[in-house]
Amino acid sequence: LTVLVLGSTGYAGMLLVRLLSSHPNVTSILAVSGSAAGRAVRESDPGLSRHGADKIPGGVYLSPDQAAQKKPDAVLAALPHLESSKLLEPYYGRSVVIDLAADFRIQDTAIFEKAYGTPPPRGDLLPQAVYGLCEVYRKQIKESDIIANPGCYPTASLLPIIPLLRASLIQGPIILNALSGITGAGKKARADYLFAERAENVNAYAPGQSHRHWAEMSEQAAVSGLSGELFFTPHLVPIRKGIEVTGVARLAPGTTGEAIRGALGSAYDGAPFVTLAGDRIPQTRDVRDTNRCDIGWKIEGEHLFFFSVIDNLMKGASGQAVQNMNIRFGLDEAAGLPLTGSS
Amino acid sequence: LTVLVLGSTGYAGMLLVRLLSSHPNVTSILAVSGSAAGRAVRESDPGLSRHGADKIPGGVYLSPDQAAQKKPDAVLAALPHLESSKLLEPYYGRSVVIDLAADFRIQDTAIFEKAYGTPPPRGDLLPQAVYGLCEVYRKQIKESDIIANPGCYPTASLLPIIPLLRASLIQGPIILNALSGITGAGKKARADYLFAERAENVNAYAPGQSHRHWAEMSEQAAVSGLSGELFFTPHLVPIRKGIEVTGVARLAPGTTGEAIRGALGSAYDGAPFVTLAGDRIPQTRDVRDTNRCDIGWKIEGEHLFFFSVIDNLMKGASGQAVQNMNIRFGLDEAAGLPLTGSS
Amino acid sequence: LTVLVLGSTGYAGMLLVRLLSSHPNVTSILAVSGSAAGRAVRESDPGLSRHGADKIPGGVYLSPDQAAQKKPDAVLAALPHLESSKLLEPYYGRSVVIDLAADFRIQDTAIFEKAYGTPPPRGDLLPQAVYGLCEVYRKQIKESDIIANPGCYPTASLLPIIPLLRASLIQGPIILNALSGITGAGKKARADYLFAERAENVNAYAPGQSHRHWAEMSEQAAVSGLSGELFFTPHLVPIRKGIEVTGVARLAPGTTGEAIRGALGSAYDGAPFVTLAGDRIPQTRDVRDTNRCDIGWKIEGEHLFFFSVIDNLMKGASGQAVQNMNIRFGLDEAAGLPLTGSS
Amino acid sequence: LTVLVLGSTGYAGMLLVRLLSSHPNVTSILAVSGSAAGRAVRESDPGLSRHGADKIPGGVYLSPDQAAQKKPDAVLAALPHLESSKLLEPYYGRSVVIDLAADFRIQDTAIFEKAYGTPPPRGDLLPQAVYGLCEVYRKQIKESDIIANPGCYPTASLLPIIPLLRASLIQGPIILNALSGITGAGKKARADYLFAERAENVNAYAPGQSHRHWAEMSEQAAVSGLSGELFFTPHLVPIRKGIEVTGVARLAPGTTGEAIRGALGSAYDGAPFVTLAGDRIPQTRDVRDTNRCDIGWKIEGEHLFFFSVIDNLMKGASGQAVQNMNIRFGLDEAAGLPLTGSS
Repeated sequence: LTVLVLGSTGYAGMLLVRLLSSHPNVTSILAVSGSAAGRAVRESDPGLSRHGADKIPGGVYLSPDQAAQKKPDAVLAALPHLESSKLLEPYYGRSVVIDLAADFRIQDTAIFEKAYGTPPPRGDLLPQAVYGLCEVYRKQIKESDIIANPGCYPTASLLPIIPLLRASLIQGPIILNALSGITGAGKKARADYLFAERAENVNAYAPGQSHRHWAEMSEQAAVSGLSGELFFTPHLVPIRKGIEVTGVARLAPGTTGEAIRGALGSAYDGAPFVTLAGDRIPQTRDVRDTNRCDIGWKIEGEHLFFFSVIDNLMKGASGQAVQNMNIRFGLDEAAGLPLTGSS
Repeated sequence: LTVLVLGSTGYAGMLLVRLLSSHPNVTSILAVSGSAAGRAVRESDPGLSRHGADKIPGGVYLSPDQAAQKKPDAVLAALPHLESSKLLEPYYGRSVVIDLAADFRIQDTAIFEKAYGTPPPRGDLLPQAVYGLCEVYRKQIKESDIIANPGCYPTASLLPIIPLLRASLIQGPIILNALSGITGAGKKARADYLFAERAENVNAYAPGQSHRHWAEMSEQAAVSGLSGELFFTPHLVPIRKGIEVTGVARLAPGTTGEAIRGALGSAYDGAPFVTLAGDRIPQTRDVRDTNRCDIGWKIEGEHLFFFSVIDNLMKGASGQAVQNMNIRFGLDEAAGLPLTGSS
Repeated sequence: LTVLVLGSTGYAGMLLVRLLSSHPNVTSILAVSGSAAGRAVRESDPGLSRHGADKIPGGVYLSPDQAAQKKPDAVLAALPHLESSKLLEPYYGRSVVIDLAADFRIQDTAIFEKAYGTPPPRGDLLPQAVYGLCEVYRKQIKESDIIANPGCYPTASLLPIIPLLRASLIQGPIILNALSGITGAGKKARADYLFAERAENVNAYAPGQSHRHWAEMSEQAAVSGLSGELFFTPHLVPIRKGIEVTGVARLAPGTTGEAIRGALGSAYDGAPFVTLAGDRIPQTRDVRDTNRCDIGWKIEGEHLFFFSVIDNLMKGASGQAVQNMNIRFGLDEAAGLPLTGSS
Repeated sequence: LTVLVLGSTGYAGMLLVRLLSSHPNVTSILAVSGSAAGRAVRESDPGLSRHGADKIPGGVYLSPDQAAQKKPDAVLAALPHLESSKLLEPYYGRSVVIDLAADFRIQDTAIFEKAYGTPPPRGDLLPQAVYGLCEVYRKQIKESDIIANPGCYPTASLLPIIPLLRASLIQGPIILNALSGITGAGKKARADYLFAERAENVNAYAPGQSHRHWAEMSEQAAVSGLSGELFFTPHLVPIRKGIEVTGVARLAPGTTGEAIRGALGSAYDGAPFVTLAGDRIPQTRDVRDTNRCDIGWKIEGEHLFFFSVIDNLMKGASGQAVQNMNIRFGLDEAAGLPLTGSS
């Protein structure tokens, strides 16, 4: 495959290039950057090894204009929300598009507008787009040319609850609290995310129903059968990478522990990247640098507590994008994606 | 005052010595340590300045036996749970005892036994003990000679909810999620709390109703009028100090934002260490190295979200112990306690 | 005293306001900010307690124009290099000026120009300026109205070596390696200093003789009698605050351990903020949140290894500025300055 | 290959198992642990994916006794110093032994005894042992059955200097300062390495010639032609993984920049894991989770400054051990070893 990466110098884009550099089915990486066009990729990412740059023609970033002349098999876009679907214009109908931004994630345009302040820029293409939560929409992903890569928080939040909602085992209100590493804020030069501001510091933000990702996960939960409300409160914690979600939901009357395990087990049996940890509460380090989501849970009276961890840049962004590409092109779903981290 | 500190080499004990070293009403600090008796205090705590050690006779730790000969005005005990109330034996009836362990925190011995696996070692003294949550039990503290210094999680959790429960403004289930720094685990040599285990890692533990502090806060919430359940799920995050609590509760029908603000305002009007941040969500750094608790909140439909931050070693342990001492001896409640941190 | 602070919203300026808020001899703080004029100080610094803001008229930042109408006893300027001495224009001859920037630190204008790319903006005032390394130039500071507060690296580097150079006990080349926390880079919104860039990462930068602070410490070392070269290589490490300097120098022939201890001892006898740790190697946490500098050393054959730690925002910036103010106004040198940190 | 790992539950041993689990030439991993024998490997290392455990018979740890019955092709020992060479007893002459401890690293037994307080336990085998610094002793490694895997500090320190010493381009004294992540201290439950002790804290330790690794690197430097002294001062910094070494050496008279680049270039031309960064100063994150060593340098008058970074658990321990195994068995030197990290 020839794969084009838009927005190659941000955290997600940089990881896309690194992942593709050792992907067995990728022969050429077109790394695109508006700000760094013409410069050596290894100059802005010295962590990429010499051999890692071999698949990048000339070892340099292309400009968006240069890129628009290419006909890659797949385009992976790590661009800002609301801009992404516009900058992807040259590629619709020509390449498979996997968009890491929010532009195609929400089918209900009113919900989108409430969250992002404007209608989806390419609402006309929404009917062609699939929500790329791999383990849930694998079939649809295989047949779609516009894949909306889910947000990091929704990925970690929805994987434990969708099978339980579909099986009518839990009810609202579902109360989610999430902890996120700082790479989730991207590589923007903002004083809020300086080391000196975030180290030795934690806080909640955008509580309840005010975070943009709430809209996305709320629509998906509703589609999966949620009755009642869903609340989501994220927190910033001083780690580079990782998301942990702690959720509480009411059990539907009569739900047993076996039913919970059964629903999750049949949903994720054979899924290489979901590990059911049972009553072991997973830690973010368990999945660091991997494309996995580990899920644990505990029943407490009439409530279910559940715990879900991902690496926000991997399963929460770039890893899942490559997984979507693998699924779409009929490759091994795990090709080029780490199952075990370094340490 | 002459103040004796038991367990002076742990994190809470070390901070007690540091706080007392600059307390304007304390003239003598008897620093006791079983393991370091006879050694210079500044040898095990080089952060204590030369002048800071001036109030410590000889600048050395006393042994527990040496200490038992003394008649201090107050004894502040930073000892392990279940051992503390036994090791305090020489001081009952002789000195005002402020116990930072759990031994006197829970009046219902069945609840205590469920949480700690054994009845309270000195259950006979429980009727004399007061729960030392300063802003809530100030009057009782003034008249008690056994003060049970609250746990760190209960301090941060109860300060926002007790006034609201007393005013019948919120209902259960109350769902609390807390993030804690690693000093909360103490200075024990356990591999679980190594830097290499905790850095770049977060996880939930002891969810729902299984943490020991759940018992303590559950009793206090019930006493304050809670109907319905209370759930509490702590998380470890890689900061040295700080606790953040995010809570969700159902509003009692008809409760307004003014009522919430009014109940909190009248409870903490004049309290030097509680700051009502209103719709600003507080961060743990706001209160780092201070004895403050900052509280913010937000109404979302029929639910109240609230946010509370403390420094776990200060307001969550040693600072509150000194505050209790100040109240008990009729001193300025804020004497020797920082209101603003360094940075 | 009425004290005016320029640049109150950066890390050094914010700490100046906090320190002055509890300084026993300061009755009024004029907090100035170009970007935040008119806004509440506690809005941009919620860590400042309610009472901490009592000395700030109206609790709000003044604009530079408003400030220029005032006649404060002292002006403490935490402004960018090269701009500071210009923005201090209204105060020369009217107030005692303590400049935390580099503009008055180097007497040799050629050295300054090489380091900063331009001559000192107010070279005409250099003869009136004193280098405000308190323990070394205490007498001169008492009589000067322009005090150049030293840089953080030079403070930690020079305190151990100046007494040894003056006593001719060591010779060049002196090789200094320093580790610095990230607040040293200030509160500028630069991607280089994002949490995600600096956590789990260390590196050297500006080695040998290329860092600006090399110029400053090199001049001071020469004035103190250094023969031979001085090299200085700083490193960024993921801590918020703290500087550690490890130095190696050749011993002058015949120098004994007693001579080293004697020279340091007589230089710092009675200095409240310098602690001689002898053969204990100090850690940055020993001095965190204090105005202290702890110094340790070890002789290895013909070489002296020495180790110096400070809190870069305290003794390395704002704390030393207040110390300079105390000395200049004949106050207790330690007034308002912490000797022991919180923990 | 069938590979046996001794000490599988420490940081180095755990990483060995993870690396071997995806090594293309390894078919069976015998993971040995005295303390965890019989337990599931994924229980103590939940970060190892399900498939990652496929090569481990039964997925469980073997006891040392069970292991002694096996005849693996290679034994990789991640055991404590002084014990390692004894516990390897069953495997000498039967398997290729790669020892990550110090027991075979130093040929001069007097130097060893000075550093470790006792002669090497199996000094009789020293003549058969090779110092496994792969890029320097590749030929000897191919033919040896006892390979002493170098220490982490010596690996990072020696790679830049050995080619320069061999080419007589630099002279002593060589002054090395190193920064190390906390995993370097291993997984021992010691209070010194608690998160609460190491976060927001840095310090030097064992300066000059007192660290054990000084002995090892000093012998290697001498063998490579060093005249004059070598000093080495390590520092602990709050990162999990990574070593940075900053070195200063005198240039031999007449040495040019081209000569430096030439000597390093010809030494490491074709070496997959050494990257010459030239005048770019490398950061530890550049090599995080990889087996690489990146080297930068700068000439300053008559001195050479150089900078070397590795991942202490990879190139500094387990990665280099696998690299040694690859070399010894004639495999692709980079098999199973990451060249580019995750992010």
